Amino acid sequence: MALHIALDAMGGDRGPEEMVSGALMAVSESDLEITLIGDQVRLEAVLATHDTPSSRIHLVHASQVVGMDESPFDAIRRKKDSSIMKAFALHKEGRVEAVVSAGNSGATLAAALRLLGRLEHVSRPGIAGIFPTLKGPVVMMDVGANVDCRAEHLFQFGIMATAFSQVLFGLDRPRVGLLSIGEEGGKGNLLVKKSHELLQQSSLNYIGNVEGRDTFQGDVDVMVCDGFVGNVCLKLSEGLAEAVLGMLGEEISKSFKAKLGYLLAKDAFVSFKKRVDYAEYGGAPLLGIRGNVIICHGRSSAVAIKNAILVAAEMARNKVNERILELLSLDHLLLQDEALPSLENIAAGVSS
Amino acid sequence: MALHIALDAMGGDRGPEEMVSGALMAVSESDLEITLIGDQVRLEAVLATHDTPSSRIHLVHASQVVGMDESPFDAIRRKKDSSIMKAFALHKEGRVEAVVSAGNSGATLAAALRLLGRLEHVSRPGIAGIFPTLKGPVVMMDVGANVDCRAEHLFQFGIMATAFSQVLFGLDRPRVGLLSIGEEGGKGNLLVKKSHELLQQSSLNYIGNVEGRDTFQGDVDVMVCDGFVGNVCLKLSEGLAEAVLGMLGEEISKSFKAKLGYLLAKDAFVSFKKRVDYAEYGGAPLLGIRGNVIICHGRSSAVAIKNAILVAAEMARNKVNERILELLSLDHLLLQDEALPSLENIAAGVSS
Repeated sequence: MALHIALDAMGGDRGPEEMVSGALMAVSESDLEITLIGDQVRLEAVLATHDTPSSRIHLVHASQVVGMDESPFDAIRRKKDSSIMKAFALHKEGRVEAVVSAGNSGATLAAALRLLGRLEHVSRPGIAGIFPTLKGPVVMMDVGANVDCRAEHLFQFGIMATAFSQVLFGLDRPRVGLLSIGEEGGKGNLLVKKSHELLQQSSLNYIGNVEGRDTFQGDVDVMVCDGFVGNVCLKLSEGLAEAVLGMLGEEISKSFKAKLGYLLAKDAFVSFKKRVDYAEYGGAPLLGIRGNVIICHGRSSAVAIKNAILVAAEMARNKVNERILELLSLDHLLLQDEALPSLENIAAGVSS
Repeated sequence: MALHIALDAMGGDRGPEEMVSGALMAVSESDLEITLIGDQVRLEAVLATHDTPSSRIHLVHASQVVGMDESPFDAIRRKKDSSIMKAFALHKEGRVEAVVSAGNSGATLAAALRLLGRLEHVSRPGIAGIFPTLKGPVVMMDVGANVDCRAEHLFQFGIMATAFSQVLFGLDRPRVGLLSIGEEGGKGNLLVKKSHELLQQSSLNYIGNVEGRDTFQGDVDVMVCDGFVGNVCLKLSEGLAEAVLGMLGEEISKSFKAKLGYLLAKDAFVSFKKRVDYAEYGGAPLLGIRGNVIICHGRSSAVAIKNAILVAAEMARNKVNERILELLSLDHLLLQDEALPSLENIAAGVSS
């Protein structure tokens, strides 16, 4: 039977038009069923502008929308009929196998925790960022859900990102690195030193501390860090890639010869942009939840949404959560069950 | 009277040849006196290969060298006659006004703390990284000296980097940002939230939380962060810039037309590389010490060493430390004097 994915059609900075386009692209490239959640009148109007309606696109009305800047905790308490809450309600009822949202990421995390809850033995669900490198993709976790972490949390991020890398990228033993400021185990802050000890004892394919400069070389498949550091890295990378291209563009525009050269090399620039484009991976999986969730960038294009939907379906089809539970059980002696802090504290830290 | 700078001529991955070349370039571009510290026989041999000896280059013999991977704490205890220890001894005796080293940065920090000590009211000296942006340089502090920080430390980094930015870049009121994961003051980890409160009460030109993606836009002059996060950012930026150019190069090499285009645009690429080259700023000032110190990258070229020497001289000439003391006195109510942790703990965290 075809998988069924819920898309928060009101999320994202570009409006429902972009979400609907992404959903239509996804159904045309797959056998998925997709339910769009949002203002029914508006979504029907948007769908009517497309001349390729699909019988595999469904609508569920939600009367409320959570704004991008709203307090996540207030949002999930007060807006029970918001598109994001309804998406997770459908997932909880088993009517869909995954949720994709480009909306308020704190609210997405809070709603997932409230309605689906954590996987057994997972202390802190986290967000896995997927970065392009010179060789293959690297999965960095956490990139923003947990800004104050203990070593046990980083250890679990390593397990969850390993499971994702195995299932989605087909790697048998993904190489796990701990993001630090020197390759020796003794280097790093207190959190990193403790996390190093735990990871060393684990059954993961732990290769030790890895420095930021090695992130993009492709010699590591999984990069473990706390959500503050990971989020800073995520945004720094976006900003730096833009700045690098901006500065290069300025230099090129200074001479006619260089401009001509750019025109000749333009295809290479386009392929390059595609290669470093985060939209290629669609979004960031939220791991450690009893369900399959992809959190997309607010600025996501239709292509990014399409890719996020396809990745969400892969997570469900290949049972990434069963893999996480298996890996957790291999290292159960290193784990302690732990209560979740209040949703208010968790969601306040999240940054989209 | 001309200023006198000490250069650890045995430091760096490229050997004394590169250090000597850098020193000779610096004297030819300035009226500085430079003392090279290291193995006298070897340095004389290197100097003899240059046909432009200068009467403003001096030699001081040191019988020992601290290796790049040696424990900094052991090094400064056991190698009293190392080039790095002798450089700081000269500074302490007032025979030079600044020290430049591309050697073991942990040992450089430890030697500076041991022989020169901290400026009054400075809890934690730190390393200021200088990044190119689309507009002007941004000073990020700390980029590696202090991996576990309290809010008071970040606040002092803001003061010291502001003084540096005023004195070296001529900015009247440098805009100070706090590196975080969202622009709202409530976002960030516990350390950032507390630091935000202190910075808000200060006399600095504090503009609030700044995200990593904005670092390279040039809308902030000083970026405050702990040394772990700062060092990760420093290395991630280096790695990403290399990876971006590497991926672009791969794309260009795929077609003849693109290769031809690259040749035409090559000057633009060269200007671009110069613009993002860290060697342009020569090195990272170590601030909060009773002296003027520049820590250079181990891979520093002669040009980077030359620029570091010129920046060190500017720090001494324009009395950056007096400026730091003035700024500290403006906010003395927010400061508490604090003992330094053992040098062992400090230097262990440092990463070159």
